[in-house]
Amino acid sequence: MTLPIETPAVLVDLDVARHNIRAFQAYADRHGIRVRPHIKTHKLPQMAELQLDAGAVGITCQKVSEAEAMVDGSPRIQDVLITYNILGAEKLARLESLNARVTLSVVGDNQTVFDALSAHFARTEKPLTVLVECNTGADRCGVATPAEAAHLARRIADAPGLRFGGLMTYPPAGAAAQVQSFMSEAKRLIEADGLVVASITSGGTPGMMRAAEAPVATEYRPGTYIYNDRSLVARGVATWEDCALTVLATVVSVPSENRAIIDAGSKVLTSDLLGLTGYGHVLGRDDIRIDQLSEEHGRLVSDGPIGLVVGEQVRIVPNHACVVTNMVDAVHILEGGLPTAQWPVVARGHVV
Amino acid sequence: MTLPIETPAVLVDLDVARHNIRAFQAYADRHGIRVRPHIKTHKLPQMAELQLDAGAVGITCQKVSEAEAMVDGSPRIQDVLITYNILGAEKLARLESLNARVTLSVVGDNQTVFDALSAHFARTEKPLTVLVECNTGADRCGVATPAEAAHLARRIADAPGLRFGGLMTYPPAGAAAQVQSFMSEAKRLIEADGLVVASITSGGTPGMMRAAEAPVATEYRPGTYIYNDRSLVARGVATWEDCALTVLATVVSVPSENRAIIDAGSKVLTSDLLGLTGYGHVLGRDDIRIDQLSEEHGRLVSDGPIGLVVGEQVRIVPNHACVVTNMVDAVHILEGGLPTAQWPVVARGHVV
Repeated sequence: MTLPIETPAVLVDLDVARHNIRAFQAYADRHGIRVRPHIKTHKLPQMAELQLDAGAVGITCQKVSEAEAMVDGSPRIQDVLITYNILGAEKLARLESLNARVTLSVVGDNQTVFDALSAHFARTEKPLTVLVECNTGADRCGVATPAEAAHLARRIADAPGLRFGGLMTYPPAGAAAQVQSFMSEAKRLIEADGLVVASITSGGTPGMMRAAEAPVATEYRPGTYIYNDRSLVARGVATWEDCALTVLATVVSVPSENRAIIDAGSKVLTSDLLGLTGYGHVLGRDDIRIDQLSEEHGRLVSDGPIGLVVGEQVRIVPNHACVVTNMVDAVHILEGGLPTAQWPVVARGHVV
Repeated sequence: MTLPIETPAVLVDLDVARHNIRAFQAYADRHGIRVRPHIKTHKLPQMAELQLDAGAVGITCQKVSEAEAMVDGSPRIQDVLITYNILGAEKLARLESLNARVTLSVVGDNQTVFDALSAHFARTEKPLTVLVECNTGADRCGVATPAEAAHLARRIADAPGLRFGGLMTYPPAGAAAQVQSFMSEAKRLIEADGLVVASITSGGTPGMMRAAEAPVATEYRPGTYIYNDRSLVARGVATWEDCALTVLATVVSVPSENRAIIDAGSKVLTSDLLGLTGYGHVLGRDDIRIDQLSEEHGRLVSDGPIGLVVGEQVRIVPNHACVVTNMVDAVHILEGGLPTAQWPVVARGHVV
């Protein structure tokens, strides 16, 4: 079926997204886990509202400017966690404004960040809630040991203008056991020091259906689960039918029997591989590989005849949904399989 | 030196960009080659004006919406080549408007595209100039043989509303000999058929300083040359000093002795590898590898002590400059090493 949409375009099937939201919320509800979805996947206040409707306690953002766009976009977004070490005078001023508007918390893993936050928020009316970021194996940010986490918890608790809010981690997929052991020990040390650990928050879509295996965590921050993507299908945690986001493209050239060129390149699909081979999955065509992207062209190859004609539309599940929504100013919403609206991606490109 | 710019940010050193523009223009002038820069790298009318000032005959765009943004952005942009197979009613209507405003040409490699162009432009006042795209080894779009090119040239010339404008190719780097042989033969066949080949246009920054080795080509379309990037330094066709575009980032965490985390991830640097290992070059730090990007974090590692502190700025030459300018709403312009302006990237995200 040809959709009446200029290509390339990013489509989001709202029925599938709603189903994905409900499925994880039901799991979390069964296990008494609070859900705080990461908006990095959709960047849309409307989707955050659907997540809140289903039972989410608030949202997660990565950058201050993302949080601003989301809070500006919906009066119903009243509880925001920014999972980032925030530095710089302008960002702190913006953080202060946000803190005055909603229930806000941030994370940090080092004293330099805490000192700057404290210096700023000691002069404001409302203290800022800060969680300690812990490294449970992803080797990105985060303190390396529970003892370090406890040490920083005390430093936050004693810092003027700050309030200790708990512990945060972004674990590798399947690291529930590490989360459980690290966080249990950190919690024990912090409580022995006389502090309350109000929240222990973990995240990641690949491991979300095993979140209950780290019962010490009270909150979970899934992001990609709302749309899913080829990387999650490859991991066996989603099916093609669970993929709410697809890229609609048009075949613009069939220069040889086993090759076709589409009008979507890395400026829509992105070069994210996430360990996969090829740049996406053409729905209904398991034989096709997207073996090369330039900025505005995607190359489709098959061992047999490609069987596509110039002008034909194809729908592609990208490797990584989150980065694709950052490439377009608006997404096309489908309901009942048909386009019903365009939603501007208001938090797109908000990297500051 | 710390720059007074919120990070992450994309910086463009205007002095370096001006030097890069002049260097290729001088080469092209010496060899009698017309220069038609591809705006995909900068997406900025201001940069196109610098290129026109230096002697460029016009600009190249990949998509109709890019051409619109550039023509809207500068009254001096009066000659535009869109190197793309254009399909779809809405795009054709927009193409018609553009054709009424400026000297416009497009390319195509198949009869379906020509039929649709002809059906549309037969009803308009001004015919559309169409070049035949030829495959000289990149195996993306393009007809496979000179005979096919000649066949399509005749079809264009005979199509109501269209005017045959010549031949276009986007060769692999170092394929000057293939360009020369393919285009010479195609030109011979087309002229034997009684048609004039007004333009033979080739492109690509990696091979630009060998453009004269394909003297049959009358025009060259370099893109990345204005900024350069890590991929071009790796190919030996630019130095770090020739790189006009850098990403400014701040160290937000130093969680272990040989690892630091910056606030620029794939939403600024992108995941483009272009055959390289790692996601960019930290200027002044040959020992550092950017070994992992997530959307908002970049991971810097070194075999020795990383020697960076939280709050410190770093400047990174990305693997691929063109895709980086698509990630931000504005770039910071440096002159004499200092920020002097912010230029909105008006053709960013124009994929339609």
